[in-house]
Amino acid sequence: MGPQATLTDHDLNTLDRHWRALNYLAAGQIYLTGNPLLTEPLRPEHIKPRLLGHWGTCPGLNLVYTHMNRVISARDLDAVCVWGPGHGGPAVFAGAWLEGTYGELCPDMGRDLAGMTRLFRQFSTPGGVPSHAAPQAPGSFHEGGELGYSLAHAYGAALDNPDLVVTCVVGDGEAETGPLATSWHANKFLDPVHDGAVLPVLHLNGYKIANPTVLARLPEGELDELLRGYGHEPLYVTAVAGEDPARAHQDMAAALDLALDRIAAFQRAAREGDGARRRPHWPMIVLRTPKGWTGPAEVDGVPVEGTWRAHQVPLAGVREDPGRLRQLEEWLRSYRPEELFGADGRPSPEVLACVPSGDRRLGSNPHANGGRLLRELPLPDLADHAVAVDKPGTRLHEPTRVLGGMLRQVMADTAERRDFRLVGPDETASNRLQDVYAVTDKAWQAETVATDEHLGPHGRVMEVLSEHLCQGWLEGYLLTGRHGLFSSYEAFTHIVASMASQHVKWVQTARTVPWRAPIAALNYLLTSHAWRQDHNGFSHQDPGFIDHILNKDPHTVRVYLPPDTNTLLCVADHVLRTRDVVNVVVAGKQPCFDWLGLEQARDHCARGLGIWEWAGTERPGGEPEVVLACAGDVPTQETLAAASLLRTRLPELAVRVVNVVDMTRLAPREEHPHGLSDREFDAVFTRDRPVIFAYHGYPWLIHRLTYRRAVHPGMHVRGYKEMGTTTTPFDMVVRNDLDRYRLVMDVLDRVPGLAVRAAGLRQEMADMRHRHHDWIRRHGVDLPEVAEWSWPG
Amino acid sequence: MGPQATLTDHDLNTLDRHWRALNYLAAGQIYLTGNPLLTEPLRPEHIKPRLLGHWGTCPGLNLVYTHMNRVISARDLDAVCVWGPGHGGPAVFAGAWLEGTYGELCPDMGRDLAGMTRLFRQFSTPGGVPSHAAPQAPGSFHEGGELGYSLAHAYGAALDNPDLVVTCVVGDGEAETGPLATSWHANKFLDPVHDGAVLPVLHLNGYKIANPTVLARLPEGELDELLRGYGHEPLYVTAVAGEDPARAHQDMAAALDLALDRIAAFQRAAREGDGARRRPHWPMIVLRTPKGWTGPAEVDGVPVEGTWRAHQVPLAGVREDPGRLRQLEEWLRSYRPEELFGADGRPSPEVLACVPSGDRRLGSNPHANGGRLLRELPLPDLADHAVAVDKPGTRLHEPTRVLGGMLRQVMADTAERRDFRLVGPDETASNRLQDVYAVTDKAWQAETVATDEHLGPHGRVMEVLSEHLCQGWLEGYLLTGRHGLFSSYEAFTHIVASMASQHVKWVQTARTVPWRAPIAALNYLLTSHAWRQDHNGFSHQDPGFIDHILNKDPHTVRVYLPPDTNTLLCVADHVLRTRDVVNVVVAGKQPCFDWLGLEQARDHCARGLGIWEWAGTERPGGEPEVVLACAGDVPTQETLAAASLLRTRLPELAVRVVNVVDMTRLAPREEHPHGLSDREFDAVFTRDRPVIFAYHGYPWLIHRLTYRRAVHPGMHVRGYKEMGTTTTPFDMVVRNDLDRYRLVMDVLDRVPGLAVRAAGLRQEMADMRHRHHDWIRRHGVDLPEVAEWSWPG
Repeated sequence: MGPQATLTDHDLNTLDRHWRALNYLAAGQIYLTGNPLLTEPLRPEHIKPRLLGHWGTCPGLNLVYTHMNRVISARDLDAVCVWGPGHGGPAVFAGAWLEGTYGELCPDMGRDLAGMTRLFRQFSTPGGVPSHAAPQAPGSFHEGGELGYSLAHAYGAALDNPDLVVTCVVGDGEAETGPLATSWHANKFLDPVHDGAVLPVLHLNGYKIANPTVLARLPEGELDELLRGYGHEPLYVTAVAGEDPARAHQDMAAALDLALDRIAAFQRAAREGDGARRRPHWPMIVLRTPKGWTGPAEVDGVPVEGTWRAHQVPLAGVREDPGRLRQLEEWLRSYRPEELFGADGRPSPEVLACVPSGDRRLGSNPHANGGRLLRELPLPDLADHAVAVDKPGTRLHEPTRVLGGMLRQVMADTAERRDFRLVGPDETASNRLQDVYAVTDKAWQAETVATDEHLGPHGRVMEVLSEHLCQGWLEGYLLTGRHGLFSSYEAFTHIVASMASQHVKWVQTARTVPWRAPIAALNYLLTSHAWRQDHNGFSHQDPGFIDHILNKDPHTVRVYLPPDTNTLLCVADHVLRTRDVVNVVVAGKQPCFDWLGLEQARDHCARGLGIWEWAGTERPGGEPEVVLACAGDVPTQETLAAASLLRTRLPELAVRVVNVVDMTRLAPREEHPHGLSDREFDAVFTRDRPVIFAYHGYPWLIHRLTYRRAVHPGMHVRGYKEMGTTTTPFDMVVRNDLDRYRLVMDVLDRVPGLAVRAAGLRQEMADMRHRHHDWIRRHGVDLPEVAEWSWPG
Repeated sequence: MGPQATLTDHDLNTLDRHWRALNYLAAGQIYLTGNPLLTEPLRPEHIKPRLLGHWGTCPGLNLVYTHMNRVISARDLDAVCVWGPGHGGPAVFAGAWLEGTYGELCPDMGRDLAGMTRLFRQFSTPGGVPSHAAPQAPGSFHEGGELGYSLAHAYGAALDNPDLVVTCVVGDGEAETGPLATSWHANKFLDPVHDGAVLPVLHLNGYKIANPTVLARLPEGELDELLRGYGHEPLYVTAVAGEDPARAHQDMAAALDLALDRIAAFQRAAREGDGARRRPHWPMIVLRTPKGWTGPAEVDGVPVEGTWRAHQVPLAGVREDPGRLRQLEEWLRSYRPEELFGADGRPSPEVLACVPSGDRRLGSNPHANGGRLLRELPLPDLADHAVAVDKPGTRLHEPTRVLGGMLRQVMADTAERRDFRLVGPDETASNRLQDVYAVTDKAWQAETVATDEHLGPHGRVMEVLSEHLCQGWLEGYLLTGRHGLFSSYEAFTHIVASMASQHVKWVQTARTVPWRAPIAALNYLLTSHAWRQDHNGFSHQDPGFIDHILNKDPHTVRVYLPPDTNTLLCVADHVLRTRDVVNVVVAGKQPCFDWLGLEQARDHCARGLGIWEWAGTERPGGEPEVVLACAGDVPTQETLAAASLLRTRLPELAVRVVNVVDMTRLAPREEHPHGLSDREFDAVFTRDRPVIFAYHGYPWLIHRLTYRRAVHPGMHVRGYKEMGTTTTPFDMVVRNDLDRYRLVMDVLDRVPGLAVRAAGLRQEMADMRHRHHDWIRRHGVDLPEVAEWSWPG
């Protein structure tokens, strides 16, 4: 990097000591259960009984940790790191231990011999910590277990944190994933005025598990074009196996200085400049190191350092093979631990010279434990947004459009605080939330033209046609202590099913880590749902995300199906207040009958499910003969239509109508914290009456939730069963046997004696279904009577 | 493109007529239900009652269709097209109708007035065809409903089709998705010797639903760097709204000629050259057109053509508003239909001048209806690969490693035919299938170094760290008539959950399209499963892909859990023979006890589930007192261990052991074609005995499948319940209550009277669990007795 070295000899020496200490501590975690400082010759009993862990990525991560320490100290920088590569746990735990954070958070991890021993022993050990930068790792808000999301998380963290620098180490294996590949474009959405900076460090160590990586094998010019095409200015740092690391230290220091100078200049220009918008070509670092750098160069004559063989445990069978044991000891001693730690295990002052203090330490920065920064979200009075309902089923509203008005208020009330964001894949307006554009824009740093609407550099609505990037942004935003909501077409939340799993697992685990503060819920609004894909058709119909989420930890997952506009408002108000959970809210965007006034909606949502007495025909003090249950807006409409038909045509039949908002109420109390006791459940559903349950999604979910209930043998569930196509709303319910006529027939078939008694009505219902088939074939639209249907009262 | 025009005036004229005809037919599909040739003034009753469809992308797709016709005819090119942009249906249906293919496949879609009327009426109409390039669209093997997979499909189609050119139109909306963003790198895996070519056409029409696209708003130089960084030579074609399209035609023709010349030269060099490997920088086309090109420039004074407003139906309310109706008529007449079609609806000879003949037509090319090309896969004699089993539970094999030997044989036997591929995200060896490397390499066109192993330019194992790209490759390969298998870590198949849904929906729909020939099954091998993530931990534990798949069309989905090595071979042999289905096979890679010899395994797999009499203690002619059921390798081991404990300690208890391989056998016969009748089911599981079911995945699935069975009220299911971490195999089963001791306790608790009678045994089992907890805390490894356990009987 030119003749003028960035680092003085002294700095170089202390940085190298810090890096060596980290490398020693990382290797120690993989191998040692005793003799942590090598104060005696290594013996088999000092070696862990099972050697688990991944050495390959650690030295590179350690280099970043060391050098981030330098620049944080030198610049008093507010910085966090996202450690993208898989199995980077040893590096992150080592860094946090060495800087003292770990010992402050977990007193048994102090910077002494006992603490070091426990640090080593806990790693990848039953009851210990995993090999990833999991919630147990101080300073981490990204696990790196499943790969692909580091850069999106980093950008999410940087949003609305103008003074924060988020350094993001991207592994070259991870860089092959789709989510990571598109995350490079997140720089077109970063506001240099209100957001912080993301500094990607593409770590090319060349190999995945068993293969070279694509990016590491590109010719240099092609890689450079690619990164510039992504909108970055790449700065290169290359380390060579066997070479004195001094050059790598100098180059890394120079690259970091240059990158941070560039970032500061871009931010200054944007914040203090003439207001002209120029999208910065943000710097990034390409860090090329050997995989397993400084580890064994060869094992049994086969190259290891710098190859895929360094991925996991470079020396296996150490307990059994004295030669391997000796090689391990040589390797560990090559870091000269006696220079790095006192006999009591305390790191020497030289090792700690670069370490920042207090909350500037990477393991202590509050952004990486976002709950510490979380503030209550200001939520509006629902009465200002609720719709008036004089009589159920007489007026229509688009639930998500009304929600949009409420979210607009939240946006307005957080305009100064900037701790609330909406994300969505190009669908905020399609999902009818566009009222928010009255108070904020869609974030957009790229070119604009005259016909564009609602695009702006400072907007807090994030839209890009990548569910992965949307989810990653929001996760990063929440994990660093803010609030948000992801609106999506219902079917396409499956695209982020695996990300959602990983987030649930993070939250579930983080709840067990005492020093982690609770974070705001991850809230999904699933709309444009299966029943109303009139022009998108079969490919857009999939209500299974609910099933996916409900397989996860019951203390972390919630699913709500508000049946109308006011219930959606109440559910939204609730979920935006929750912590350490994932909420899935399914609600339609199409005009939907209003059933409940605001106070009724509040009560109903607070209970989670309940009897809609006004919709049924039970006699006071009597027992129902049949229960019509429903969950979801379209099933609720069809159920109430069926109840209305029964009321008119069979007024003597005692029908009970039950609506379910919170799906987990159906689960047994022992299986979900929201689950009803059997007594509560039976009071609503009865113990022995036929239940016809019209459900929004795959019908089996209801069976799965209720199979232990007394009433279950008589429960008959209608739902979505993959009978979809491009068709009308009513045709969709007919195809899936969820329509009002079918529900009436189900009642007649299941109430003892009724099929015979009401044979005429049954035939009439069957005729209506035939009439529908005939009508739609001839006219291409729904029967007028179903479209114009209204609640009789 | 220089002074020398590519097209003569005559060619220009006929191409433009073809393009105009396509545009007319596309618009007609969106709007018209009568008066298809505008032989009379347009009246409201000629307009469809519901206007559904997406005009925005059509003119660009039509331009590609027209120009592909030209080069196919001129070069006798074997070419197919992947139509990536969403809602491109009108263009693809128009092209197939115009070239005559549609009428040949569906006689009521002939090239006459009646056929044209039906073409228009069916579009986005109940009972008709969807707005995407769905299975009903001739020439399509990619739907474009969910976005992101076009380019991966295109590469999959090109593999092992050396003479094929796959033109792939990538929408700029789709280009923002993660899967698409990483698919650009698929060119590093394309073999110019044995594979065909992919010609990406990046269609920058500038907008998604409501937003500009990122790529369309990049400065030209940045976009060029990006595409060169992806390894392509970009060729640019730009059309301007309102301008004579002649220039766009000339530029498109020149770009296509140049691209195809380049492709031919690269292939010739690789196939006839000196053998030196040079990765080609394949050409691609950047086609910049206005969105909704040639549609209404303005509506009510607001710009439409060239903006996001052209996305769907550019003129709404046409039936109601006479002004709009007039504007529509002007628009449609601007294509001069009277020049394009005779009064009988037949296209004029000039319109058809560019259209190729027979199977060279894009709608007829057999690669796009791959079943037409499918050949039986040569499968080896299983006896050559099966392991010998003298006595159950005495020897261990790694099931997937033995499968690797079988797959090696398949690879060897298809070395010439090249119609079988393995795909996997950097895990083929990790999943123990590495025997295949004895006969083929991992496909790799990038640089190699001395330490690389099994990488080669002609390999048929596809590895890249992107489940999306793996799945996309395989789907494209299968849809064009070949065979394959996707091996993956079980948890991370969720990454492609949505792709799997879309493929199931494609297959389900294609089965209803009479002219579609059946294709080979999409086979998943899910290994490295939840129970054996000893060093990857919690983030790698998720058995829910099974649940996801089983929500789909029962005629299309199958799930198998072979309990040992020989059953895995039998299942693999079966699934590789199946057609038009998606098979999920879950099998471990860790050493697993052999239970069944080959013939027993064949019988067991043919039945799908069965009683393992040798493992139980039923008296001949008697009834069991309890049923121990199991599915999955680890649950089978624990169940047999429990059965073994019971046999030793409670020999008088009549225990039946049932193993389930084919999960859908459990479903009622009416719900899945593999489902057992109640009589068959009851014969195995009894009607009234306690059943303790040890299941591999989330326990609710078993309840969902069996809730209608007589025995269900007494069924108790143990499975994975998200109690995971980095730990030992036995600790995993204990944490999730699936261990042998717990299963024995479950038996004692559920067989009436037994808990009291065998209180001592129950205490002993509880003590063993305590002993385990204590042991693992102190030693970090499993109790010796569980690790050394073997089958006594």
